[in-house]
Amino acid sequence: MAHGDKAALARALARLERAPEAADTLALLDAAYQASKGQVVGVTGPPGVGKSTLMGALIRSLRAKGRTVGVIAVDPSSKRSGGALLGDRVRLLSDPDDRGIFVRSMAARDRLGGLAELTVAGMVLMRAVYDVVLIETVGVGQSETDVAGVADTVLFCVQPGSGDSLQFMKAGIVEIPDVAAITKADTGAPAERALSDLKGALSLNEEEDDTWQARCLKLSAETGEGLDDLIAALDAHRAWLGQHDRLAAHRARQAEQWLIEALRDRHGREGLKRLGKVTLDAGTSPFSRLSELAARL
Amino acid sequence: MAHGDKAALARALARLERAPEAADTLALLDAAYQASKGQVVGVTGPPGVGKSTLMGALIRSLRAKGRTVGVIAVDPSSKRSGGALLGDRVRLLSDPDDRGIFVRSMAARDRLGGLAELTVAGMVLMRAVYDVVLIETVGVGQSETDVAGVADTVLFCVQPGSGDSLQFMKAGIVEIPDVAAITKADTGAPAERALSDLKGALSLNEEEDDTWQARCLKLSAETGEGLDDLIAALDAHRAWLGQHDRLAAHRARQAEQWLIEALRDRHGREGLKRLGKVTLDAGTSPFSRLSELAARL
Repeated sequence: MAHGDKAALARALARLERAPEAADTLALLDAAYQASKGQVVGVTGPPGVGKSTLMGALIRSLRAKGRTVGVIAVDPSSKRSGGALLGDRVRLLSDPDDRGIFVRSMAARDRLGGLAELTVAGMVLMRAVYDVVLIETVGVGQSETDVAGVADTVLFCVQPGSGDSLQFMKAGIVEIPDVAAITKADTGAPAERALSDLKGALSLNEEEDDTWQARCLKLSAETGEGLDDLIAALDAHRAWLGQHDRLAAHRARQAEQWLIEALRDRHGREGLKRLGKVTLDAGTSPFSRLSELAARL
Repeated sequence: MAHGDKAALARALARLERAPEAADTLALLDAAYQASKGQVVGVTGPPGVGKSTLMGALIRSLRAKGRTVGVIAVDPSSKRSGGALLGDRVRLLSDPDDRGIFVRSMAARDRLGGLAELTVAGMVLMRAVYDVVLIETVGVGQSETDVAGVADTVLFCVQPGSGDSLQFMKAGIVEIPDVAAITKADTGAPAERALSDLKGALSLNEEEDDTWQARCLKLSAETGEGLDDLIAALDAHRAWLGQHDRLAAHRARQAEQWLIEALRDRHGREGLKRLGKVTLDAGTSPFSRLSELAARL
């Protein structure tokens, strides 16, 4: 798969969907895993903060700097319309004839949390071809943790006035991002205040050695303010990962975790298949029934 | 467990945590499942909409009407501090000497999404004792779907100006709630506009027969405006569920789904245990390694 070859990537993704377990698919995935060219940036943050608008502006800025961009819109609820909605938004924000952009909607795993096996595999294929792979999810909480499990760099977006998000970050509910951006900087004073709150929330992390110190900034997708700072912050994190084999170690930990979960998932589904159709009549308690059925596994 | 007996409930929860598989724990859970007294209300919505403040106001209003209230603060990231943070917030908003309120923080399942087995069991115990069980989560997306899997009634909170949440609901990313509330109604015109957007987003659902028509309202936890409407809407949904055995059917579907997931989860963990420690060296692709290890399962 040559660098930036949109058609080859589309063919590879189609093959992945058609025959995910075939030997040649696995060989392709293994090769793509080794290529490991691009920086995978997970874009997280609650709905309404202007993430999609930011994505559009970020893509244009990256393209203007000559970087190619792959985009994965992850739908945590696994409903097709959702992923399509996100994907469509991004598509609307980018030039369809630009071969340096590739947008794909992918599913989160059904009811199990974590990104679907195919989504992770698709990310690996895209990462082998594009300079930057942006992964956008809806929501915060579990989906944010899921993205952290596949991204090299986590970008957390928050809008002025959402103190709760920062409190959750302080409390460790929301994972500490690598780069945190206050959106809607054009609001002036509220954005300033939010930025200082954000810095306060993230300074807790400061003492540890060999730890990346999260970068905080504010930006406006409308005016373009802060976009260069954002790209500089993402680049700085990528450079930091490049030192002392940090990137390789980071990806190995993620891949190991993915492997363990994929094994658990497959074996779990296998067990269910063996039990046949599991039903529960109305009024029957599931608790003793669980130990009864578990004994047959 | 007598109705409203705080000490007995605490003992039952402790027993559940100590010996979740013991025969007497199962007998207790089965009995509690049959009692099925309370209405389980899942409270969802993005951080920053004022969910905790609303919870406090709702609890006070319910208590003023003589209803007992159990509260489960679910932490989707499974980090203890998070659940504790939510729990503490609610505790701060309620009278610690009131035997009619019981607050507990519980964990979401680790990295697997869905609520933990123990959290679901705890909810069943609490539901047997309290008139209303409120389940609060952080975040939207997966955690919101998880709560819908255990609640009788889903309350979605959104603040004025968050058009994205409504768009996601329209697109089916966020599940359709039973009751949707615009918080911060004291903002006036923006709240009015948000309410009409909300009604628009939820009217898509209108044609189907035997479907609950989602109630939309606006409220202010500060002024108390709309709180009685909220309780009336929750009551109306409970009354609707009470007709034609809808509640029993709804809970049976949820319990069946829970049973299937618990079986998959247990069997999956079993398989991992059999494989022993799964490791992946830096630079090794997880893809062919997955099929290699899966063959040994």
